[in-house]
Amino acid sequence: MKQAKWIWNYGDFELYHCMLLTNRRTVVGVMKPPMWRVDEPSCNLYAYKTAVIDKTETVTFHSNSPQSCMQIGGVIYNPGTSVTLTEGEYTVKVYVHKRDGFPAAYCEGDVFATDETWLCCAFDGNDKPVGTNDMYTELSDDPEVFKFSYERIYPCSVEKAAGGRLYDFGKECFGNIILEDVQLPNSEIPVFCGESREEALDPPNAIVQFKAKVENGYFKSSPVAFRYIFIPLSSIELKLSADFEYIPLEDKGAFRCSDETVNKIWDTASYTLHLNAREGFFDGIKRDRWIWSGDAYQSYFVNYYLMNDNDIVRRTTLMLKGSEPMTHHINTISDYTFYWIIGIWEYYFYTGDKDFVIKIYDKMCSAMNFIMGRLDENGLYAARKGDWVFIDWANFDNDSGPMCAEQILLFKTYESMAKCAELAGDAFAAEKYGSLAEKICGFINELYWDEEKGAYVDDYKTGNRNVTRHANIFAILYGVADEKKKARIINDVIKNKGIAPITTPYFEFFELDAMCRIGEYKYMTDMLKSYWGGMLELGATSFWEEFDPNDTGLEHYKMYSSKFGKSLCHAWSSSPIYLLGRYALGVYPTSAGYKTFEIKPNIMDYEFIKGTVPTPDGNVEVEMTKDFVKVVSEIDGGTLILDGKTYNVEKGTALYVNR
Amino acid sequence: MKQAKWIWNYGDFELYHCMLLTNRRTVVGVMKPPMWRVDEPSCNLYAYKTAVIDKTETVTFHSNSPQSCMQIGGVIYNPGTSVTLTEGEYTVKVYVHKRDGFPAAYCEGDVFATDETWLCCAFDGNDKPVGTNDMYTELSDDPEVFKFSYERIYPCSVEKAAGGRLYDFGKECFGNIILEDVQLPNSEIPVFCGESREEALDPPNAIVQFKAKVENGYFKSSPVAFRYIFIPLSSIELKLSADFEYIPLEDKGAFRCSDETVNKIWDTASYTLHLNAREGFFDGIKRDRWIWSGDAYQSYFVNYYLMNDNDIVRRTTLMLKGSEPMTHHINTISDYTFYWIIGIWEYYFYTGDKDFVIKIYDKMCSAMNFIMGRLDENGLYAARKGDWVFIDWANFDNDSGPMCAEQILLFKTYESMAKCAELAGDAFAAEKYGSLAEKICGFINELYWDEEKGAYVDDYKTGNRNVTRHANIFAILYGVADEKKKARIINDVIKNKGIAPITTPYFEFFELDAMCRIGEYKYMTDMLKSYWGGMLELGATSFWEEFDPNDTGLEHYKMYSSKFGKSLCHAWSSSPIYLLGRYALGVYPTSAGYKTFEIKPNIMDYEFIKGTVPTPDGNVEVEMTKDFVKVVSEIDGGTLILDGKTYNVEKGTALYVNR
Repeated sequence: MKQAKWIWNYGDFELYHCMLLTNRRTVVGVMKPPMWRVDEPSCNLYAYKTAVIDKTETVTFHSNSPQSCMQIGGVIYNPGTSVTLTEGEYTVKVYVHKRDGFPAAYCEGDVFATDETWLCCAFDGNDKPVGTNDMYTELSDDPEVFKFSYERIYPCSVEKAAGGRLYDFGKECFGNIILEDVQLPNSEIPVFCGESREEALDPPNAIVQFKAKVENGYFKSSPVAFRYIFIPLSSIELKLSADFEYIPLEDKGAFRCSDETVNKIWDTASYTLHLNAREGFFDGIKRDRWIWSGDAYQSYFVNYYLMNDNDIVRRTTLMLKGSEPMTHHINTISDYTFYWIIGIWEYYFYTGDKDFVIKIYDKMCSAMNFIMGRLDENGLYAARKGDWVFIDWANFDNDSGPMCAEQILLFKTYESMAKCAELAGDAFAAEKYGSLAEKICGFINELYWDEEKGAYVDDYKTGNRNVTRHANIFAILYGVADEKKKARIINDVIKNKGIAPITTPYFEFFELDAMCRIGEYKYMTDMLKSYWGGMLELGATSFWEEFDPNDTGLEHYKMYSSKFGKSLCHAWSSSPIYLLGRYALGVYPTSAGYKTFEIKPNIMDYEFIKGTVPTPDGNVEVEMTKDFVKVVSEIDGGTLILDGKTYNVEKGTALYVNR
Repeated sequence: MKQAKWIWNYGDFELYHCMLLTNRRTVVGVMKPPMWRVDEPSCNLYAYKTAVIDKTETVTFHSNSPQSCMQIGGVIYNPGTSVTLTEGEYTVKVYVHKRDGFPAAYCEGDVFATDETWLCCAFDGNDKPVGTNDMYTELSDDPEVFKFSYERIYPCSVEKAAGGRLYDFGKECFGNIILEDVQLPNSEIPVFCGESREEALDPPNAIVQFKAKVENGYFKSSPVAFRYIFIPLSSIELKLSADFEYIPLEDKGAFRCSDETVNKIWDTASYTLHLNAREGFFDGIKRDRWIWSGDAYQSYFVNYYLMNDNDIVRRTTLMLKGSEPMTHHINTISDYTFYWIIGIWEYYFYTGDKDFVIKIYDKMCSAMNFIMGRLDENGLYAARKGDWVFIDWANFDNDSGPMCAEQILLFKTYESMAKCAELAGDAFAAEKYGSLAEKICGFINELYWDEEKGAYVDDYKTGNRNVTRHANIFAILYGVADEKKKARIINDVIKNKGIAPITTPYFEFFELDAMCRIGEYKYMTDMLKSYWGGMLELGATSFWEEFDPNDTGLEHYKMYSSKFGKSLCHAWSSSPIYLLGRYALGVYPTSAGYKTFEIKPNIMDYEFIKGTVPTPDGNVEVEMTKDFVKVVSEIDGGTLILDGKTYNVEKGTALYVNR
């Protein structure tokens, strides 16, 4: 018998778990609903496989619903039935209906063991492969239960406080709070969680709080973010612990340098991303715990230099897209739809996973068609009612917002789409989007470039010629500006103190990426120390959503007009891992899936750097001091670029270059 | 306080109940899955109302899920919360997430009591009114439970048979089988249902059968169709009864004549439709119990002359359409998509319910766009892979099927769409579909009309000039043929015994309608006696899916290669009610909603006829003998047409005309 896998409608696993997590946000004990349409899996699975078998095999049909059946040659069988097939051609069909959860099937067998070779009947002639996940290969597995790992953890200290007890787990955590052997008369115990001590001790304002409904002395909460737990019951210490919930993703990437603060930044960034690497990439673990396309886009980059896990990127991508028809932008934000498409191309470029691009290509087309329905007469993106033009939540000093930045993202979207279309064998679309990319690039340079200011303006329509850093950073990153314009931008925007600085860590990712791209490494390393180092100085055990060194005390926790509104564990703050891997170790693919790649190490202002960058087929280790560079690669295709010279890197052979 | 109603996403109530009923088919104890995509409600409801209140009111929020909240002015409240609003403008928002079932909300209040004035947030700028149903107006109502009425019924006889007991309920029934005070050691009692005695007594072949899982001596089944129940347990008589499940729809229409067989036909047809008038109009109550667009289309006509219930037509229409995007024809059958659109126009014409047309207009557009994606270079309908060209399940004697009949339905679809577009204020579409109707009518007459044969051929492409009755019947009914062509059709097709007769009761509806339209009443009344009368002679208590007077014994029950495959209670066999109301009583609207109507009574071959036809605003009673006609109308707008003369019918005043 071949190893079977649970099968479902492609994408349903992701839609189901995303639906659950999107609908579980509470604020101070009240549900806070999502701001967009939440999609769900289909309630029906209709899958089949046609094959010729040359020896007898027994097919046993299982499903996760009694409302299901297997059909072979017109005969229908109940779940649990085994049918023995002698050699010949058969079509084995399975049908499962399940609404509270999602329908999934599992056939034990050989040729007919369920796996990716089964097709879903779409009733429209476009039958496509089913969905599977390598976490769910045993009959006893339940795809409706996300396969997290759990580790029992205990408070490292307990203290009396505010008429109750405060339990400190020593660092930011995520998991189920557990109460055992509860001897209290109350059957409902109020529990207040805090990422900070202050938050836990502030019952009216603690974002995460609930009443523990104790049964038989026992209670287990749904998973929440916490470091501190406050229980306002006088003098009794409870047997309190937690099931730390996580995915055991190995850190394939590594980084060390002579600066211990930077090493601690790297470790804390790693912990931050791990906490947010769940069903998909979360924005943060405390507050909304949703999947946001812009946040996820940055997490992907960190992932490629840390865990290099393909499945979480695929899951996140499917979660973000939702179902057809597309009626609003992803997370309602236009830039987030653009990142979604760009991110798929970049996923392919880092991983070489062409199969995923082919599988998701029809969803890319639907997103693209949605975008194309929102263009103006020049083919430029024009926001419609309900579209949120985000870019960065800083205020833009004009009426229509940062439209140039949107156009640059659209340009990159066309480019990405053209390349993915080529992978999917859609030559017509490849040609079409290629030429649209060229066309919009021309329009951007014609309409938004201001030769006098040496900058792209936010919007040409307003006539106010307002310049912010955002569009100009994108112009560098996404290749809209030629070398001449780039030089002007560096001089007149990037290094121009008259242009308002980037203030959000979200956009800091793009700025630091661009600064490194133009060789301004010191800007990045200084920022590491002041911004990320600043959080560490305040005792951060994970990196925050935002940080202002000028804040004091409770000011650090405030955000969105809420006393503890700020997330103290936010995925987008883990970017140092990407920046150090990409620009210090200097490893990056130059063709899809690291078939070829470059190593352009940069010691920055450290005594030494040393680390590992994972690739789809093996690791690349880089070590650099003032005196030498050492590269050990587990794959072929690498070129070391050092001090203006290039060196071929052979798989398995250490390359030393003295400087 | 104003009477509130439960609210949900428009259409979700129908999608939910249709999903349940579509997935509960079993055959000989095994699930038989639907052959199309089954849609489901959304798991999220996001509804709101903005209004100015000029006096204080208290709004109390309820929902059918703990994962829900009400939001007023940025403050979020848990379900069960009451909020008092002083005068001013407010937007009250409610959010409900529910997956096992569908999300629904209920606000007590005055201006903010939930009802049709609330809007659903669609996140795409196209917010539309919520759905409601007048059956669900109390807080204690549960829209997830369809509001049937129940009546406890008991077998009228019990006999020992085949080593067990056979319980006879005396007539076709639908409901939950109940076992009480069961003293048997078995906890699972096999139960075999039969529409016929023979079926119940044939355990390997009885379509409806199950194992009754008795708990504490009690068992209640899910609802099934039955007249006979066989329980193969030696010698013990069980306390067996049933909860007859029905909607208490009043018969507003009535018909009596001098022929008692015809009266019994009318009564049995009425009972047949009532049994099938459930969540929506079923095809039949035993076998698949699904909603089929072609079957429903005929039920609508009978409904307009019997119960005249608007809500069941609306529910059925919403159930058939399903969700966006449309990826296959309704029930996968192209003609069924056409009937769906035509049926909406006819619904409006019989009821005057413009509001429904406006609400469903976007779904009509989506169906129309789906159809338009399947036309050939002449704009004629061309089936794609997966499209089922049905028309009638008789075999057509050519390669490509009855394409002319499809084109005529498409013509009528365009006409219906043009008129509905006008109602919806979409002048552009009204113009477009009007001209498409004209164009395709021209093509049909140019390409499919065979002057030599005096008939429309099935398909012009095959060159075989094959003629069947179907397209020619449609040409008469839907107005494609001019008077000259019509005369040729009557002579060369309808009255031509060389053209194969219609053999299915489904298409008999269209044939008899057409025969009456051309004045061949005797054909219809003869058919009443031979076909429907023939079933009565065999003891039918409801009318069958199909009937062949030449069959004997068990042959009557066989269909679809299954010994008891035939449904003995099939909605489409209730057409005598329509035929007698429309052509004997002769009442029909001449403008939408019976604003104007004609009464063209025809005594057929009876001594007298007498009956009632319901209209939206009141009944029209007609009595006719050889000597006089009497008309009493509760509404204005009627014209009696008798023996070539016309008479104005005044509301509330009996009109006698001696002949």
